[in-house]
Amino acid sequence: MNLTFCVLVLISGLTLVQSVVETETSAGTQSCCPDLSLSHQELGAVKAKLEAVETKLKETESQVLVLKEKEALKVVFSAGILENAAIGPIKKPKTLVYGRVITNVGNAYNQNTGIFVAPVRGMYYFSFFYHAGGGHPVRLRLIKNNNSVVEITDHKTLMDGADNGGNAAFVELQQGDQVFVRLDANHHVWGNGYITTFSGFLLHQI
Amino acid sequence: MNLTFCVLVLISGLTLVQSVVETETSAGTQSCCPDLSLSHQELGAVKAKLEAVETKLKETESQVLVLKEKEALKVVFSAGILENAAIGPIKKPKTLVYGRVITNVGNAYNQNTGIFVAPVRGMYYFSFFYHAGGGHPVRLRLIKNNNSVVEITDHKTLMDGADNGGNAAFVELQQGDQVFVRLDANHHVWGNGYITTFSGFLLHQI
Amino acid sequence: MNLTFCVLVLISGLTLVQSVVETETSAGTQSCCPDLSLSHQELGAVKAKLEAVETKLKETESQVLVLKEKEALKVVFSAGILENAAIGPIKKPKTLVYGRVITNVGNAYNQNTGIFVAPVRGMYYFSFFYHAGGGHPVRLRLIKNNNSVVEITDHKTLMDGADNGGNAAFVELQQGDQVFVRLDANHHVWGNGYITTFSGFLLHQI
Repeated sequence: MNLTFCVLVLISGLTLVQSVVETETSAGTQSCCPDLSLSHQELGAVKAKLEAVETKLKETESQVLVLKEKEALKVVFSAGILENAAIGPIKKPKTLVYGRVITNVGNAYNQNTGIFVAPVRGMYYFSFFYHAGGGHPVRLRLIKNNNSVVEITDHKTLMDGADNGGNAAFVELQQGDQVFVRLDANHHVWGNGYITTFSGFLLHQI
Repeated sequence: MNLTFCVLVLISGLTLVQSVVETETSAGTQSCCPDLSLSHQELGAVKAKLEAVETKLKETESQVLVLKEKEALKVVFSAGILENAAIGPIKKPKTLVYGRVITNVGNAYNQNTGIFVAPVRGMYYFSFFYHAGGGHPVRLRLIKNNNSVVEITDHKTLMDGADNGGNAAFVELQQGDQVFVRLDANHHVWGNGYITTFSGFLLHQI
Repeated sequence: MNLTFCVLVLISGLTLVQSVVETETSAGTQSCCPDLSLSHQELGAVKAKLEAVETKLKETESQVLVLKEKEALKVVFSAGILENAAIGPIKKPKTLVYGRVITNVGNAYNQNTGIFVAPVRGMYYFSFFYHAGGGHPVRLRLIKNNNSVVEITDHKTLMDGADNGGNAAFVELQQGDQVFVRLDANHHVWGNGYITTFSGFLLHQI
C-alpha cells in the first residue's frame, strides 16, 4: 500500500512538472517567432523598394550624364583677315585664311588654312562679313565641303569707294564636314584684321 | 518512515526539475526577444530613410525631365530667295518668300509663305541679308505680327551697280507669333538662292 | 526492497522529465535565433546599400543643380539707335547709345550709356549693323573694354546716296568686362530706331 501511494505521488508529480515545462517553453516560443516572421516580410518589402530606387537612380544618372556632355561640348570661333591689304584679285578661287583669331574654343577652326572642321554631327551657325574697295567685284561663298551655302557679291563700282556686306546661315554638318569662305577668281576683299571676318558656333549636337 | 523519505526525495526531485526547466526556457527567451526588438527599430529607421530617398529622387527625376525637354526642343531655319531675278518693285508691300530651304528643324518656317510661326513662347534670333542693284531703292522690314522689329534700307543709286545690307535682332515671341521679312512697295531686292537670306532660331524657351 | 524500487522509479521519472524539458526548450531555440541572426545580416546589407544610394543621389542632385543654374541664366539684348537723324560727325570718338530697346533680358545692356557689362564670365556673341548716307565716312568699332574686336568702315562716297554694313564676333568676357560700339571722330551713322542696331547674348558660361 505504501508502494502504491508512493508511485501515485510520483506520477502526479511528473504530470505537474510536464505541464510546467510545456507552459514555460511554449511561452518562450510565442514571444519570438510571430514577430520575427512579420519583420521578415517588412525586410523583404524594403529590399524590393530599394532595388526599384536603385534602378531609377541609374536611369537618372545616365540622363544627367548625357545632358552634362551636351552642355560641356563647346565649339565656337571668330577670326578676321590679318593682312592690312587687298586679298585678290587672283586668277584662281581662293580659300580665305582669317589669320587673326578672336575666339577658337574647341580648335575646330584652323587659322592656317581658314577651314573649319566639324568635330561632331550637329547644327552650326556661320556668319561672315567683308569690306572691299569698289575697284574690283566681290564674290564670297560660304562653302560646305564643295557646295555653296550662302554668298555675298558686289559689282565693280569705281564711283563708290568701298562697300560692305555679310551673310549667315544655320547648316547641319556631319562630323568631319569642312566649312570655309571662298573668294572667287578675279574678285577681291580688303583685310585689316577687323573688318572682313568669319565666325561660327555649334548650336546643338544631333 | 520509508514513506516520509520517499516523499522528501520526490519533492527535492521535482524542485530540481523545476529549476532546470526555468533555466532552459529563460535562456531561450534571452537569446531571441531583445535582439528582435532592436532589429525592429533599425528596420523602421531604414524604411523612413528609404522613403526620404524616394521623395528626393522623384524631385530630381522631374527636374531632369524639364532639362531634357528644354534641350530637346530645336527650332532653327535658314532660307534664301530662290528666284534668280529681282523681287519687285511692285505697288504693294510684299512678304518675301525664301523658297530655297537650307535648314528647317522644327518646320516653324513655311517656305511657301515666307512666314515663321513660333511653336513655343521663347526668345528667338532672326537675321536677314540682301543684295540688290542700285536701280531702285531697298527697304526690308523684319515684321513681328504687324510691327517692325529692325529694318534695312538703301537709296536708289544708279552710280553704284549694287548694294548689300543686313540686320538682326533677338525678339521675344509668344506661341503663334508670326515673323517674316516684308519688302516695301516700290522697292526691290535681288535673289539667286544664295545672297538674299533669312535665318532664325529659338535661343531659349520662356 | 520497496524503498530501493521507489527510488529507482523516481530517478527514471526525473530522467524522463529532464529529456522532455531539453527537447521542448531546444525546439523553441531553433525556431527563433538562427532566423534572427540571418535577418540581422540582411538588414545590415540593406542599410549599406541604402547609404550608397543616398550618396549617389546627392551627387546627381548637385549635378542637376549646376545644369539648372546654367540653363536659367539668360543674358540677351537687342537695341536700335533711337534718333531719326545722323549721329555725328563730331570731333571726338563717341560711344553709340542705342536707346530703342527691343530685348534686354538680364539688363546687362544699359540703354542710357550704350554699354553692355558682362554679368558673368562667359562666351558672348555681339552683332551690329549700320545705315548711313555717303556724305561722310563711317567707322564703327566693337570695343571690349578699351580694345577693338571687329569693325565696320565705309568711305565718303557722294555718288552713293547711302550704304549699309555689319559685323559680328564671339568674344570671351570676364565678369564686369564692358562691350560697346564706338563711332570714330569725324565719322557718322544714321539712326531711326530700326536700321542701326546692336545685339548680343551669352552663349555659355565659362
